[in-house]
Amino acid sequence: MVVELICVGTELLLGNIVNTNAAYLSEKCALLGLSMYHQSVVGDNAERLKESLETALNRSDVVILSGGLGPTQDDLTKETAAEVMGIPLKEDPHSRERIEEYFKNSQYKVITDNNWKQALVPEGAIVLDNENGTAPGIIMEKNGKSVILLPGPPGELIPMFEGKVYDYLNKLQPEIIYSTMVRICGLGESFVENEIRDLIDNQTNPTIATYAKIGQVDLRVTAKAASEKEAAKLAKPMLKELVKRFGDHIYTMDEHKSLEEVIVHFLKERSLTLTTAESCTGGMIAARITDVPGASEVFKQGLVTYSNRAKRKLLDVKKTTLKEYGAVSEKTAKEMAKNGAFITGSDACVSVTGTAGPTGGTEEKPVGLVYIGCCYNNKTVVKEFHFKGERQKIREQATANALILLRECILADKGQE
Amino acid sequence: MVVELICVGTELLLGNIVNTNAAYLSEKCALLGLSMYHQSVVGDNAERLKESLETALNRSDVVILSGGLGPTQDDLTKETAAEVMGIPLKEDPHSRERIEEYFKNSQYKVITDNNWKQALVPEGAIVLDNENGTAPGIIMEKNGKSVILLPGPPGELIPMFEGKVYDYLNKLQPEIIYSTMVRICGLGESFVENEIRDLIDNQTNPTIATYAKIGQVDLRVTAKAASEKEAAKLAKPMLKELVKRFGDHIYTMDEHKSLEEVIVHFLKERSLTLTTAESCTGGMIAARITDVPGASEVFKQGLVTYSNRAKRKLLDVKKTTLKEYGAVSEKTAKEMAKNGAFITGSDACVSVTGTAGPTGGTEEKPVGLVYIGCCYNNKTVVKEFHFKGERQKIREQATANALILLRECILADKGQE
Repeated sequence: MVVELICVGTELLLGNIVNTNAAYLSEKCALLGLSMYHQSVVGDNAERLKESLETALNRSDVVILSGGLGPTQDDLTKETAAEVMGIPLKEDPHSRERIEEYFKNSQYKVITDNNWKQALVPEGAIVLDNENGTAPGIIMEKNGKSVILLPGPPGELIPMFEGKVYDYLNKLQPEIIYSTMVRICGLGESFVENEIRDLIDNQTNPTIATYAKIGQVDLRVTAKAASEKEAAKLAKPMLKELVKRFGDHIYTMDEHKSLEEVIVHFLKERSLTLTTAESCTGGMIAARITDVPGASEVFKQGLVTYSNRAKRKLLDVKKTTLKEYGAVSEKTAKEMAKNGAFITGSDACVSVTGTAGPTGGTEEKPVGLVYIGCCYNNKTVVKEFHFKGERQKIREQATANALILLRECILADKGQE
Repeated sequence: MVVELICVGTELLLGNIVNTNAAYLSEKCALLGLSMYHQSVVGDNAERLKESLETALNRSDVVILSGGLGPTQDDLTKETAAEVMGIPLKEDPHSRERIEEYFKNSQYKVITDNNWKQALVPEGAIVLDNENGTAPGIIMEKNGKSVILLPGPPGELIPMFEGKVYDYLNKLQPEIIYSTMVRICGLGESFVENEIRDLIDNQTNPTIATYAKIGQVDLRVTAKAASEKEAAKLAKPMLKELVKRFGDHIYTMDEHKSLEEVIVHFLKERSLTLTTAESCTGGMIAARITDVPGASEVFKQGLVTYSNRAKRKLLDVKKTTLKEYGAVSEKTAKEMAKNGAFITGSDACVSVTGTAGPTGGTEEKPVGLVYIGCCYNNKTVVKEFHFKGERQKIREQATANALILLRECILADKGQE
């Protein structure tokens, strides 16, 4: 089964945005065992989109298009795809109702004429409700080919794909795919790759693929067989081998679980509370923790102490510490973590202080120098990091490593129970 | 002059990496005033690459290929492109020398046979030295068409493009592009589009394009002319018209400026300080503010008060308020903002309290109900919002709207000065 992507949007051709949808959809299609040989990008232009779609339909079984489903005149993916497939558009009462509903609850109360364009659907098509916007997704089938239209914004495309399109594509395939994501934190990409070079070189079924993210490396193990049970059995020895090689660096084997979810779960299990004391990450750790539904059980409050005065006032960091060692120092990070836990009455506190740049670095304390502290169960540890990259990348790395250190502290403590 | 991209690499088709090269090259080509109508991705497969390149050469003047110039057997971009162009390969003594030099200085001292493959160059081609790797870039010209081959790793591609390819492309182009991004906040995409329908319908030069993001809409106005001055002059009436129609909703005309940067700049100008009092956004507003370099001048501290107890303890929200109105209420948001400013001694404080879901919603207070408060210059306003979508999307919308409300309060105050 051959699948092909067409991403629609002049903003992609102008380089206004990076095409993360293509990477996301490619990864998912690979996971489903579909072969992909072509991806393309065209602008908001009916003629060129038509040509691209015709070419794609000639060489592939399934064509996924993303973007161009919005209410504006630019948006013409649906109209063009329906024309290429030779299927007329018709208003879908259900979609019209959903748009009315959406606007009733939206801050923008005015429905303009162009919004109703989004309720038009190719006759006989499968309509995919959009939980995060007004443009429904659409699946058209004809002459053994499928054309799938998805909205461009990743916040709409991803939930729609996970909720509906994945299952649809899975059913087109005779073989069952069994895939497990082994998520590793605290080790670099090339280190991980080196450790599994032999497994990669000899892979057949299951296969193994690496995906590097900030602060973590994901390994996807995929097996194909006639039944799920059989495929799972094929994957098992490889998974066992990975657990043997990476041990506690594996924080989950659940693809949909994030590091922060694992941490919130850990703390919940132990009925412990967490607080954050952030300087250069400026709230990013708290934001990741509170992204977990139900985080309120373990996270009651967080402090962003950006200035020295705030570090003193809110976290009781000693004046002499700031004067003698500076705000970016092991000692400040330690006091922030320790006092943060004490003052807020929390069982754990992670702290971050560093120089994210672009200015403010010195020879002694260059941009990228970050101290991360963690107080857990009355023990406080601090680690020094030298991160590379731009301001936002340094902050993201610091955030990820704060979560990794917190997890390490919880695990280490567990070992001593 | 029409340019087209072909990115070569199976890792792109598998979704192992995000295609940042395409975004980078597209943006540069747009800046150079080159028109781009197509981008494509193919794997390391000679037949499909050949087909793609032939198609591209039929419809474009310049084709830029990235990737597949490495020393391994997989790497066949150069061989395939030379074949399509009908130009034989020949060893280039200069490139051979550079490879020898590179290995002398590298940690990998062993030159294998396949490394010499990289010294082969199409006859008469322009060779672009690679300062960051062994694969030289190549420009082939024939029958008025140019084919440009660049290495895949961004760390090699970007310096090579900036150093050599930019100038080469600039010389091919007689026209200059002048582009301005008009960034609008606080209005929905279809509302904005409706307001400018006449401008869109009648666009020729300049053109106008809309880009929707969370909480904002960007309008790109692009004019082409023989000189930058002339192009700027062409764009001016359109820009004036947009200012007339959207007024204060336009927060910047600087493409590289974010809403948070504009706000930090506003506050700096007025020597004012800001704090944040966040519940459901859990630090996201503070994180956006501190993403601005130099935010420390205006942002000293932020509070994440996730629990009722933290709201009482850190922000002095009245027990009776929480009991009678609940944490998600106008009154709580008001006290959070007002007390937040007072307690921290800040001139401004934005507060957010709401239900981000997925659970915790009631009929009276459904998921998505968010109150955003802003205390500025001793006046406090609160707005009620009903956001749609998943937890993360609700939080992002709340964050964006908190920044928008803060900007509104600053502007309103300015009017009364």
